[in-house]
Amino acid sequence: MSRFMSARHISLDAYTPGEQPRNRKYIKLNTNESPYPPSNGVVAAVAEAARGLQLYSDPECKQLTACVAEFYGVSPEQVLMTNGSDEILNFAFVAFGDEEHPFAAPEISYGFYPVFAQLNRVPYKPIPLKDDFSIDVSDYENIGANIVIANPNAPTGLCLTLSQIESIVASNRQNVVVIDEAYIDFGGESAIPLVNKYDNLLITRTFSKSYSLAGARLGIGIGCQSLIADLNTIKYSTNPYNVNSMTMAAGIAAIGDSAYYRKNCDEIISCRSYTKRRLQSLGFAVTDSKANFLFAAHPTVGGKELYLKLKEMGILIRHFDSEPISNYNRITVGTREQMDALIAAIELIMKEGNIK
Amino acid sequence: MSRFMSARHISLDAYTPGEQPRNRKYIKLNTNESPYPPSNGVVAAVAEAARGLQLYSDPECKQLTACVAEFYGVSPEQVLMTNGSDEILNFAFVAFGDEEHPFAAPEISYGFYPVFAQLNRVPYKPIPLKDDFSIDVSDYENIGANIVIANPNAPTGLCLTLSQIESIVASNRQNVVVIDEAYIDFGGESAIPLVNKYDNLLITRTFSKSYSLAGARLGIGIGCQSLIADLNTIKYSTNPYNVNSMTMAAGIAAIGDSAYYRKNCDEIISCRSYTKRRLQSLGFAVTDSKANFLFAAHPTVGGKELYLKLKEMGILIRHFDSEPISNYNRITVGTREQMDALIAAIELIMKEGNIK
Repeated sequence: MSRFMSARHISLDAYTPGEQPRNRKYIKLNTNESPYPPSNGVVAAVAEAARGLQLYSDPECKQLTACVAEFYGVSPEQVLMTNGSDEILNFAFVAFGDEEHPFAAPEISYGFYPVFAQLNRVPYKPIPLKDDFSIDVSDYENIGANIVIANPNAPTGLCLTLSQIESIVASNRQNVVVIDEAYIDFGGESAIPLVNKYDNLLITRTFSKSYSLAGARLGIGIGCQSLIADLNTIKYSTNPYNVNSMTMAAGIAAIGDSAYYRKNCDEIISCRSYTKRRLQSLGFAVTDSKANFLFAAHPTVGGKELYLKLKEMGILIRHFDSEPISNYNRITVGTREQMDALIAAIELIMKEGNIK
Repeated sequence: MSRFMSARHISLDAYTPGEQPRNRKYIKLNTNESPYPPSNGVVAAVAEAARGLQLYSDPECKQLTACVAEFYGVSPEQVLMTNGSDEILNFAFVAFGDEEHPFAAPEISYGFYPVFAQLNRVPYKPIPLKDDFSIDVSDYENIGANIVIANPNAPTGLCLTLSQIESIVASNRQNVVVIDEAYIDFGGESAIPLVNKYDNLLITRTFSKSYSLAGARLGIGIGCQSLIADLNTIKYSTNPYNVNSMTMAAGIAAIGDSAYYRKNCDEIISCRSYTKRRLQSLGFAVTDSKANFLFAAHPTVGGKELYLKLKEMGILIRHFDSEPISNYNRITVGTREQMDALIAAIELIMKEGNIK
């Protein structure tokens, strides 16, 4: 740290992204990327956009916003496009959080929420999960704080129903409820239809997972017009040209190719069931994930041990070294071939370790 | 505004980007874009990167950072790549500004500086320019505040010498001095060599102007290792994947094609001299701009009037409706053909208005 860092941030504990080692070719099952490439339409649209990069991107992101609004059945004034969904999440903490307006969130969830809170000096209330890692909806009803919940939650993969979400939103009309739907396309029910009913609901989405665009950085915020106007004020006070021309073109083309991406999601859902059964047959406890990852623990093979051994064998999964989930690993659902390689590697580890 | 906006931001006055009307095809001389397209190498690199967008971009931006560091003769630990230079400027206000550490800046300069200050609740001290729009270096010596100076300054185009910059940096060792070199490639002398001598100096750069990549959003921060480490902490607390894969590829290719971009800059410098002479011969007062724009006022044609008439005729220039510059316009230097069209339009306006 330099001698110039503001005292505000002396103890700031930044987010640690999943490792992206470049030393060898891994089977990457650690950052919930899609195993499928972007559609041909996306690749062509990006190549075309590259020829005009000397011009600024449209700060209003009009064409993409209109596409997204139409696709989700809302008006363009209810949509804000961002540089990944991390940006819209940060904007929400900036806009709606302060000393008097804390954010509550599940204690085990996306590790970035407490970082956004700390950076923006917003009090943060972690709410423990139940023993089965599920969210107790009654903990959030009338909580008197802003709320952020990933649905499905990460890294557990567990999903709340639409009526559970509505109960949380309806009982906290004086606070903003952010539902982070990064993984919703893999089997959950979206709360987007509720934004016309509740002015305190913000939905965030990403093109990183179901739309194979992790490397393009494209996120969405959907809410009532006045919430989106506030988030736009923050955007125009930090980075008006936050979404570049190539990413805009990629987003428009991806929405146009939705059928391709829907098919990919269905493949992933099917492969998730397959992998879950295989893991269970090896003795793993596996949560009922509705995301593009599985969350699994073995009664005799430690979570960290499994992660390290698989890494040695060229397979990356995500381990979180904190309780009560240190025995678990988050495993991205890839292709059938990748999952077979994973299962074979785990079988080998169990055999060599004489673990049954 | 929604009823949820934090009281922190109730009076936040966001930045207004230059207009980007899509209703007709303008000669765009209003946002200091390059008239030249990106190099073929950039276009090819982006098309290639598009094929792998399902994977996250490298949060460490290693390859691009190494290229940039080598190009500018610093170490990779002295470089931070960002989503446009607006992002690195905002990070500097977040990291180094607070109630006890205000930022001082020229009163007439990039309109975003006071917005960053307001958003982050950092006191802001605007320092008036001299009557000829030049910066009085003595105003900044031993000022006891963080400083941000655009060099060349915008919209005036006027440049400080390297020794003037050093005098400001050397006399403020207890504060951070940010030199925003967005326009330095058009004739100014860079302060990058000073970063090894002063730990309180941060240089910001952009690929938007001299590298024809406004639509790709790529900025650079260069400073001593500990300053860059602090800015990295802020990055990892807001948006770790801030630079997308396509932009990274574009940046690497652009550095590789520097000769092409240097030639373009030289063309623009030459066309700037030409246009300046033409404007002066029409009676305009024109500052000694070292940027890719001219700053000009006419004794009898009002600044706003000229801007509006040119817009009607399909030529966009930038007007700032504030004193003491309301009679001036900022005119991007485009191609020779574009500038001839501008001069012809101005001649017509003066003739029709019977103005001599």
